[in-house]
Amino acid sequence: MTNKKVAFMGLGIMGSRMAKNLQSAGTPLIVHNRTKEKAEALLTHGAEWAETPKAAAESADIVFTMLSNPQIVEEVAFQEEGLLAGLKPGALWVDVSTVNPSFSETMAQEASSRGIRFLDAPVSGSLVPAEKGELIFLVGGDQKDFDEALPYFDIMGKASHFMGNNGKGSAMKILINLMLAQNMVVFSETVHLGTAMGLSQEVVVDTLLNHPVAAPILKGKRDKITQNEFSPEFPLKHMQKDLHLVATTAFEHNYAMPLANAAKELYAQAKQHGLGDSDMSAIFKWLEKNSATTNE
Amino acid sequence: MTNKKVAFMGLGIMGSRMAKNLQSAGTPLIVHNRTKEKAEALLTHGAEWAETPKAAAESADIVFTMLSNPQIVEEVAFQEEGLLAGLKPGALWVDVSTVNPSFSETMAQEASSRGIRFLDAPVSGSLVPAEKGELIFLVGGDQKDFDEALPYFDIMGKASHFMGNNGKGSAMKILINLMLAQNMVVFSETVHLGTAMGLSQEVVVDTLLNHPVAAPILKGKRDKITQNEFSPEFPLKHMQKDLHLVATTAFEHNYAMPLANAAKELYAQAKQHGLGDSDMSAIFKWLEKNSATTNE
Amino acid sequence: MTNKKVAFMGLGIMGSRMAKNLQSAGTPLIVHNRTKEKAEALLTHGAEWAETPKAAAESADIVFTMLSNPQIVEEVAFQEEGLLAGLKPGALWVDVSTVNPSFSETMAQEASSRGIRFLDAPVSGSLVPAEKGELIFLVGGDQKDFDEALPYFDIMGKASHFMGNNGKGSAMKILINLMLAQNMVVFSETVHLGTAMGLSQEVVVDTLLNHPVAAPILKGKRDKITQNEFSPEFPLKHMQKDLHLVATTAFEHNYAMPLANAAKELYAQAKQHGLGDSDMSAIFKWLEKNSATTNE
Amino acid sequence: MTNKKVAFMGLGIMGSRMAKNLQSAGTPLIVHNRTKEKAEALLTHGAEWAETPKAAAESADIVFTMLSNPQIVEEVAFQEEGLLAGLKPGALWVDVSTVNPSFSETMAQEASSRGIRFLDAPVSGSLVPAEKGELIFLVGGDQKDFDEALPYFDIMGKASHFMGNNGKGSAMKILINLMLAQNMVVFSETVHLGTAMGLSQEVVVDTLLNHPVAAPILKGKRDKITQNEFSPEFPLKHMQKDLHLVATTAFEHNYAMPLANAAKELYAQAKQHGLGDSDMSAIFKWLEKNSATTNE
Repeated sequence: MTNKKVAFMGLGIMGSRMAKNLQSAGTPLIVHNRTKEKAEALLTHGAEWAETPKAAAESADIVFTMLSNPQIVEEVAFQEEGLLAGLKPGALWVDVSTVNPSFSETMAQEASSRGIRFLDAPVSGSLVPAEKGELIFLVGGDQKDFDEALPYFDIMGKASHFMGNNGKGSAMKILINLMLAQNMVVFSETVHLGTAMGLSQEVVVDTLLNHPVAAPILKGKRDKITQNEFSPEFPLKHMQKDLHLVATTAFEHNYAMPLANAAKELYAQAKQHGLGDSDMSAIFKWLEKNSATTNE
Repeated sequence: MTNKKVAFMGLGIMGSRMAKNLQSAGTPLIVHNRTKEKAEALLTHGAEWAETPKAAAESADIVFTMLSNPQIVEEVAFQEEGLLAGLKPGALWVDVSTVNPSFSETMAQEASSRGIRFLDAPVSGSLVPAEKGELIFLVGGDQKDFDEALPYFDIMGKASHFMGNNGKGSAMKILINLMLAQNMVVFSETVHLGTAMGLSQEVVVDTLLNHPVAAPILKGKRDKITQNEFSPEFPLKHMQKDLHLVATTAFEHNYAMPLANAAKELYAQAKQHGLGDSDMSAIFKWLEKNSATTNE
Repeated sequence: MTNKKVAFMGLGIMGSRMAKNLQSAGTPLIVHNRTKEKAEALLTHGAEWAETPKAAAESADIVFTMLSNPQIVEEVAFQEEGLLAGLKPGALWVDVSTVNPSFSETMAQEASSRGIRFLDAPVSGSLVPAEKGELIFLVGGDQKDFDEALPYFDIMGKASHFMGNNGKGSAMKILINLMLAQNMVVFSETVHLGTAMGLSQEVVVDTLLNHPVAAPILKGKRDKITQNEFSPEFPLKHMQKDLHLVATTAFEHNYAMPLANAAKELYAQAKQHGLGDSDMSAIFKWLEKNSATTNE
Repeated sequence: MTNKKVAFMGLGIMGSRMAKNLQSAGTPLIVHNRTKEKAEALLTHGAEWAETPKAAAESADIVFTMLSNPQIVEEVAFQEEGLLAGLKPGALWVDVSTVNPSFSETMAQEASSRGIRFLDAPVSGSLVPAEKGELIFLVGGDQKDFDEALPYFDIMGKASHFMGNNGKGSAMKILINLMLAQNMVVFSETVHLGTAMGLSQEVVVDTLLNHPVAAPILKGKRDKITQNEFSPEFPLKHMQKDLHLVATTAFEHNYAMPLANAAKELYAQAKQHGLGDSDMSAIFKWLEKNSATTNE
């Protein structure tokens, strides 16, 4: 592993922390980002700078891309000075961005037609896990490519799940987001019913969070709920978009999802009433008996 | 604590194990059950037998009742030879049965009018936690009565939550069941979407169960799901009834619960199609893309 | 028919108009009401006054009751000076009030045990149809009793439907209300989607109302919607209560109703956000993209 | 009007009947269809045949297209021998096919860039109304173009609604289908609740259909329901697809539609359980208490 040259593109909130962990573990890095300033800390500690995705890719055995949406991945990959123009046959491209399964499949085909190997490896976890190297990788592609990338995943994350062929990593990411969206609605309705019945909100919240019926991830939303402060980590409107993606995917695969669609419309209501830019946990606020948004 | 005389009534699947744990910890017990056979093991190890609830109550400082529904609690309490006829003023009645909050409130009033103290203390957990002394107690009543009962809860359980005045323990129990019901639907839809997208069911199940988006309680349903075997621990029709209780309670408290009602009707569909006597996790089967129940 | 003595009790908004139509058609009437003033117009034109329900019932061959809820029906029937104390065996009691099916069944049994015949005959239609004699009667009981009452129904209404034995008239009334509730939600969502797509609200409203996909009853709500003025004819909170009755009835009969329950919660949301005392058509306002209630 | 030369393309179930009505009213016609046989009856009565869409368009002042989906409209319009290659500037193209609003907008732009006027004018009504000249036209475009086409709409239909600029006719068509889909679910749940309560299915069906709470269009589904025979007029899977289009459109316009999404999933369930090729009214069968599909 240590002999391989690694390129990392996309040094935003997540990418910069992931690259930092690779560097700290001794990985020789070549980096690229739309704006060079975000690379400064890495360059100071010895990373090499590339002016274009192509330049970064040319000398790399393995390339990680952490970009904010499929359109940007496409641009970085296919532009004239893009990474596909630079990557040598046999190289491995690991896209850790969150994108649609079908987009990952398309990227895999485009890569394959150029003799390049591809993994879709979106991560579960946000800023803090990225910093601590505690992300969870959900990976689609060839098992042997997964094995090759695993040492890097182990540096940046605490678990890596091989889900099947290309697109399956991105597919699993959708499922994780669906679970999170639903957990938040279920928890909200339950807590509010509790207070409607005369229980103390704080007591209900803490009893549930310490009980095995509550998903552990909900603990991370405790403070937002109890302090009624919903600054965005994962904006509610993005979650609503993901649920629309779930519904569309289910339609395409001929699977009925009554509960997922019901939740989707609750997020749509919340967005419609001004909570789209708040954290997705603001669905708690929308589902209050006397929703504060309606009294303003 | 050890000086107090404890009566325990209701020695079914749960009660027998709970009483056994009290006995093993050295608590002097007087027991009663509709059928005496179920008390044999306890009597062999030194418990005293009472022919009637009244007889059990007369010499007790504290009485536990673990009965299967409100009707039976009512009967055991109010019949001529019932426990309220036997309990001396100042005694403490701890009802650990699962009942409606309003029923617990009524029992508390009836007890109070006779100078008897009352706690509603339903438990979360089934056979195995009962046996291992790992139940979770959800308790409503006076704080000092809770404190007095706590040593016993600690023997039978691993956690005890004081929820507020009478009825609040039973209220919290409804919330736990609601969370469980919803978790099961959410997990089912998510797993089935995964397989519809081409993921392996087993891989999705295990990836989710090892991820913080899944409530730990779901692990207990893993084998039923993967083995497609839904012998009842908690019959689906009882869960559907509990969801109807949730909906009615929400109506009475003027709280809208769109998602809970949507889930309620999914359990109603499953029951309607023959899964009422299966375990509540059989909702997984009902929500399959090609539900097996529909091909029989 | 003309030889029979008819008693009419309950001279509110509906009852006074129905009795007036009977009187205008030449029916000899004896009337009773909690407050005598409401009977004045009828007395002026020859109706006889009775001080108590019992007094009204004693001389009658057929009694109509038009009361506002089951509690008042019960009181009028069973009080010491109540109608059941006055009715002679063989007489016919026609309850045209809107009540639960199970309540109608109970009244039928109580009547039958006294040798009195009973019809539950709730009406569909409000003030204007009552005045014009254009109500629709939904009737449960014996076919021959229905035939006997039909001439009176024909005076007060434009259609009478025999639905089966006692309780079935009241059952049918629930179904009518369910249809109305759902029509209103469906129409609201459809119109608002139209305006979201850039269509003129008035054009969409009128195109739909003139198209066979719209229930004719919706025409009666056109002005409320287009003028955004929701003074109550049928308060929204009563419709929400009726939907809860639908859900409870469906539960009791083991029938899953996903859409009815979804609509139920939309009315619950609307009520929760302050529209409970508005007309039920104010669900249109709640379902607006930018609900006015949320901007106040 | 009579001086204008009219071309009609697409002589399927609907188109052949619509063209026949134009011909019977004395309109000089030039026709084209993928297979010539379907034009025989029209040719016998004096219509002119065109070998290609281009040929048909060249001599026409006004062209009607009645094609089965957007892909075919696109092909007929843009192929080398297509209608846009033939139409002279100033001519009027009236697309009476059912397509997405955005597709209609695109066609309007393409036409406009060639100096051609365009109306989207989808029809409401199926075989029988087409034959009787009782269709309903929902029209988007310029008011003066609508006025010009109106005499032809009047021959083929009983009502024509001008909805606004291009795309608005197609938008209105979506709304009509949504209302139909919802009416069918609402009616089904209501009737089945009635039978669950002990009412006769036939009595409930007919009482509702004769009551203003039922949309008149439901009468056309009466026989399918009462005879439990669901041969397709409008296949259920197409309705499910239309509801997915509704949900996607609502998402794009940021409008929450809880009830429409709930209904969408009921159709999805029905399709999933084998009713996709039955008539859309087979949702009645799916929503039965003991759905026959589940006993096969």
